[in-house]
Amino acid sequence: MSEMFDWSAVALAEKVRRRAIGAVEVVEATLSRIDAVNPSLNAVCTVAREQAVAAARALDGRLARGEDGGPLAGVPLGVKDVIDTAGIRTTYGSPRHARHVPEADALTVARAKAAGAIVIGKTNTPEFAAGASTFNAVFGATRNPWNPEHSPGGSTGGGAAALAARMIWLAEGTDLGGSLRVPAAFCGVVGLRPTPGRVPSVPVPVADDPWQVNGPMARTALDVAALLDVQSGFSSDHPLSVPSTPVSDEVARYDVRGRRYAWCPDVARIGVDPEIEARCREAVRDLEGAGAIVEEIDLDLSSAREAFLAMRGLWFVGQHYERIDDLDGFGVNVANNIRLGLATTVRDLARADRLRSDNWRRLAAVLRRYDALLTPCVPVEPFAADQNYPTEIAGKPMRTYIDWVAPTFVFSIMGVPAASVPAGLSAAGLPVGLQIVGPRFHEGRVLGIAHAVERLRPIGRPALAG
Amino acid sequence: MSEMFDWSAVALAEKVRRRAIGAVEVVEATLSRIDAVNPSLNAVCTVAREQAVAAARALDGRLARGEDGGPLAGVPLGVKDVIDTAGIRTTYGSPRHARHVPEADALTVARAKAAGAIVIGKTNTPEFAAGASTFNAVFGATRNPWNPEHSPGGSTGGGAAALAARMIWLAEGTDLGGSLRVPAAFCGVVGLRPTPGRVPSVPVPVADDPWQVNGPMARTALDVAALLDVQSGFSSDHPLSVPSTPVSDEVARYDVRGRRYAWCPDVARIGVDPEIEARCREAVRDLEGAGAIVEEIDLDLSSAREAFLAMRGLWFVGQHYERIDDLDGFGVNVANNIRLGLATTVRDLARADRLRSDNWRRLAAVLRRYDALLTPCVPVEPFAADQNYPTEIAGKPMRTYIDWVAPTFVFSIMGVPAASVPAGLSAAGLPVGLQIVGPRFHEGRVLGIAHAVERLRPIGRPALAG
Repeated sequence: MSEMFDWSAVALAEKVRRRAIGAVEVVEATLSRIDAVNPSLNAVCTVAREQAVAAARALDGRLARGEDGGPLAGVPLGVKDVIDTAGIRTTYGSPRHARHVPEADALTVARAKAAGAIVIGKTNTPEFAAGASTFNAVFGATRNPWNPEHSPGGSTGGGAAALAARMIWLAEGTDLGGSLRVPAAFCGVVGLRPTPGRVPSVPVPVADDPWQVNGPMARTALDVAALLDVQSGFSSDHPLSVPSTPVSDEVARYDVRGRRYAWCPDVARIGVDPEIEARCREAVRDLEGAGAIVEEIDLDLSSAREAFLAMRGLWFVGQHYERIDDLDGFGVNVANNIRLGLATTVRDLARADRLRSDNWRRLAAVLRRYDALLTPCVPVEPFAADQNYPTEIAGKPMRTYIDWVAPTFVFSIMGVPAASVPAGLSAAGLPVGLQIVGPRFHEGRVLGIAHAVERLRPIGRPALAG
Repeated sequence: MSEMFDWSAVALAEKVRRRAIGAVEVVEATLSRIDAVNPSLNAVCTVAREQAVAAARALDGRLARGEDGGPLAGVPLGVKDVIDTAGIRTTYGSPRHARHVPEADALTVARAKAAGAIVIGKTNTPEFAAGASTFNAVFGATRNPWNPEHSPGGSTGGGAAALAARMIWLAEGTDLGGSLRVPAAFCGVVGLRPTPGRVPSVPVPVADDPWQVNGPMARTALDVAALLDVQSGFSSDHPLSVPSTPVSDEVARYDVRGRRYAWCPDVARIGVDPEIEARCREAVRDLEGAGAIVEEIDLDLSSAREAFLAMRGLWFVGQHYERIDDLDGFGVNVANNIRLGLATTVRDLARADRLRSDNWRRLAAVLRRYDALLTPCVPVEPFAADQNYPTEIAGKPMRTYIDWVAPTFVFSIMGVPAASVPAGLSAAGLPVGLQIVGPRFHEGRVLGIAHAVERLRPIGRPALAG
């Protein structure tokens, strides 16, 4: 059965649906694999053993009676521990919630389960998803399957590490500043931040939050599309919800020949590690070799950094409004972000609105002229697993602890979809992510390009994937 | 030709298209009518005489050559003076911009012109559309055609008055707190606040502003639908833009039989003038008589008032960011709103986010159970034309100068479409508006109900319509 762990989610579901393999068999083999591999990675923080076996048994029963198993039939799914799962402990990475067991599934979890996916467990996250690495006071640090000395990135770091280590086939996560893209880049998988409104986030503290979005992660772009198609769709429970159509067919059929892409190595103007830039340039050259037209452009989105930081301050205060005068129980990242938020003024926020508009207009002009924008996802290689953040980029010290995430967060405030796809490995054997940014609601195109890149530049599997 | 002024915009365009009447003939008769009627109302603040005649001549030429005239062929349109019109003075109601002539049309104006509409002039607005009455230091006060002693409401007051007085067939306006609904209610016409994203607002200071939206106003729901269908549609120039489909057919076919509506006389808990409530209840009863099922519900959206006021403060600072330290050139409403905005804190804004969420969830629960919510649009009758705002509602003094607009602004921050349709006349012979609120992107349903109400309860025409 060991070959099963390299099948795609789509292929696995197809085999389960036609009963070539039993869902219980899949789940039991997956649980054994988690038992064997997870202790060295700490990616799956809570294993939903009994629930997963029961769900698999029920699915096998439905399939035996000739019922439809759903597009994700029997596929083990990891759910980030900030997303509610009915009857499965959900800690938000916070000691205050260490024993919390939600009564109801988040909407994306309910939709994935209805599509046949099996929640095999919760994946590790920093406290309340704050930070682009993955450690917390409840479960400790998650490690990178390509080298356990290194961080998997974050905040959907548990999901990315579990995917790369073949413990799950699909991961659900969230992205405010890059939390579905940064760990995908560090772990060599594919993560997509969808257009706000495509995947309804329910429940959330601020109903119409346009900044933090739910989204999919997987080992391939087609698997990401399969999960996105299940997560997407109008919900009257979400005020930004927009009707949407499936993208999987578009991704499978996407052809780069004759397409025009813009390439820019440093949109946030914070510098980029030369080896990261080199791998991304190679991916760009491979796309040209496959028939795409790529032009290097000069796009300066650096002032979007200031806009993001101001709006993120208000966002943190809104998220934790009930507790903003009682920060003792929070970890350092959340507490500092709330403090920064409380020091933000209306002047700062109005200026942020204007800067966001200016940068959006520059990006929109590029996305009118080109089919997509290509740029490095993370400007640094995966750093040490117990480090909160890197201290320098390409030899230059960072101004704030979050500077290194600027190449992803500048796109978060522009309402556009963005994905990270593996562009290759560094000399140290660590993955490098290429970020693909497309126009609003063009997730099919973004994942289509990712699908082309992953076929042109397969990176193999990490040592810890066995 | 005097019967022309009572044709619908749709009927007028149809006659122009099949050359039963010439566009030049329509425009010249309309200009004569504006010359005769406008001096007593001050609704059209700038008449675009030469441009309108030239556009009509060009249209007649195209029609003579067998070209398509467009869905709004030859229909005189009034554009609110905060919306840019190429080559036509656009003052924003501000003395600082009294001589401003934009080089380019706003997107909605360009779309209306491309559909054959003729911009006949600009309609009066308070300075920067701030306030729900219509007077400014450039043009003075606009008056209500039903009684020139009274206000037409605002801020799209010039458009509503010009429609009611048969000087135009269609009006373009904007709505932050009720500026397309309040004047429609006061002047006995139909105004629609669309779902943010349906009608792209370009240009605007803050590109992704979800609070102030552009939208249509006309004498009938079908004419509003015709203009909405022209204004709507995806634009890569607007970050909230969403693809949309036309609604005119749905509005024309809409049948109230068997539909379930919720009725609530005072969602904002600020009180309602008994006569206004009585007219709206009669409209509700007429809908029941026509086969709808209406239930009175208890819906409390009063805390959305606080949320709106906090967010509006930030909104004003963002709109006028370049000039927030130089308030001398502003009128009292704009200056005071900027001052209030600058005194707003992140704490206030985070609380506003939470309150907005709470109220949205209450409204969403109603809109899941019922097809639409019906409630009075404005809780007071049109007040004196030179008054900034009314001082009491149903005998009770108001807490803030904007309280009386709460029944419309509580819906502005929930991302839902809302329309005002005439429900009847008060004892004083002044119009009363019923507000219809539907789920996001269900403008066709909202206008369908408005279409039913206007057929059940025709209010006739004001004395000043001749």
